[in-house]
Amino acid sequence: MGKVYLVGAGPGDPELLTVKAARILGQANIVLHDSLVGREVLQLISPQAQIIDVGKRCGMKLLTQDEINALLISYAASHQTVVRLKGGDPSVFGRAGEELEALRKSRVAFEIVPGVTAALSAAAAAGISLTDRRAASQILITTFSRGKNANAMEWSAVTSTTTLAIYMPGSDYAEVSGWLREGGLPDDMPCVIVSQALSSTQQIRWSSVAALAREAKLPAPALLIVGRVATQNFEEIVANVWRGDAFSGAAEIPTVS
Amino acid sequence: MGKVYLVGAGPGDPELLTVKAARILGQANIVLHDSLVGREVLQLISPQAQIIDVGKRCGMKLLTQDEINALLISYAASHQTVVRLKGGDPSVFGRAGEELEALRKSRVAFEIVPGVTAALSAAAAAGISLTDRRAASQILITTFSRGKNANAMEWSAVTSTTTLAIYMPGSDYAEVSGWLREGGLPDDMPCVIVSQALSSTQQIRWSSVAALAREAKLPAPALLIVGRVATQNFEEIVANVWRGDAFSGAAEIPTVS
Repeated sequence: MGKVYLVGAGPGDPELLTVKAARILGQANIVLHDSLVGREVLQLISPQAQIIDVGKRCGMKLLTQDEINALLISYAASHQTVVRLKGGDPSVFGRAGEELEALRKSRVAFEIVPGVTAALSAAAAAGISLTDRRAASQILITTFSRGKNANAMEWSAVTSTTTLAIYMPGSDYAEVSGWLREGGLPDDMPCVIVSQALSSTQQIRWSSVAALAREAKLPAPALLIVGRVATQNFEEIVANVWRGDAFSGAAEIPTVS
Repeated sequence: MGKVYLVGAGPGDPELLTVKAARILGQANIVLHDSLVGREVLQLISPQAQIIDVGKRCGMKLLTQDEINALLISYAASHQTVVRLKGGDPSVFGRAGEELEALRKSRVAFEIVPGVTAALSAAAAAGISLTDRRAASQILITTFSRGKNANAMEWSAVTSTTTLAIYMPGSDYAEVSGWLREGGLPDDMPCVIVSQALSSTQQIRWSSVAALAREAKLPAPALLIVGRVATQNFEEIVANVWRGDAFSGAAEIPTVS
């Protein structure tokens, strides 16, 4: 019996995988990857390995989730190192839950190798802190539910010092702007769209909840950061909300390591 | 003029830095690091580099934030590669905001190199998905405010399918349990404490919001994950809330890459 590694591929730059992820790709016997995992990352895979694209492209389903689960279990019986390679981090919007459940049920050994998730890549690209203590106290990693419960989220209930990191915002920015306003966010709340973060084709568009409706479309994958920290005029924002350690919006947050 | 790199050190395992972070540590002329960045990570630093611990240890302040900002600017004038090394990811609870502001004001070139933040390491260690679509739709990365606004957070307002990733929960689990209950979370909501994730001394304690009050203390750094996904009996939970794609709590969430 082999082992299945659920590996985070990070934002796309092959230097932004972890050292461990790169090592495991180099040792892999077989790799099942999502479509959006970039070509340069795939070049880290051992030349001897079999590579299978199990992702979806333009809505065309290549394999169902049940089929992917079954493949992982079946390959683990015949291959020593099976890699399930996912964009970003495996624990964030990647359907790892169902794969982990299937592996556990079949008593297949597995290990998650974490990666840099899109919220962090976007913040790095924009040069901002998601939790700048002068204006933010927490981060909500979320996405728009496009099913029947769409718009059910009350963003303003989350507190005014919450930074929203919205995955897969889509390209209809007018609709997105509408959802944010319906959710209770003020028109002048800053936001920034980060497209293809930390790649050579990266684009960054600074905007606000209301102005977002009129922005020209940026290519996917993209991430939308909404909150007081999402601005280049941060000094201005801070001047209004921050009074040194006496900032009333958020208590002092200790440094994390 | 040199350049300042704000580098994420990840959870502690030197294999869980990004390839880029490891490369930049090897090229550094001077590194300013937080106390909790592990010894093994520090061993990746070029032997020629000067290493400065600017962190806090047991509440004893070594340097103020203003002093750290001033050092970064001053070192950038005389060193080519200045590294500000932070545990996890620089954009999450690391005071990068004030450093970025100071660097911008002084026109010092900088770059953020993202890292694996603690929520992702903890999920990987526990072998769970933070956004398992059968029980979760989003993640709130947060911490307890211990200032005058403590307890201001209404956790239940965030939706019942939100996974809480609570940084620095502290060791008074009875107090933490009380805060979660006051915030509106049900007694039987699962949670898991992950101590020193992905290290050789890792410990994982599965619990619930009410039972947490009676758990024995685990060593820092630790992270508390609260939500339906935070269980080893996930099948049981899923049986109650998941009806295939007709799950009423959260619409289908597409795979992210």
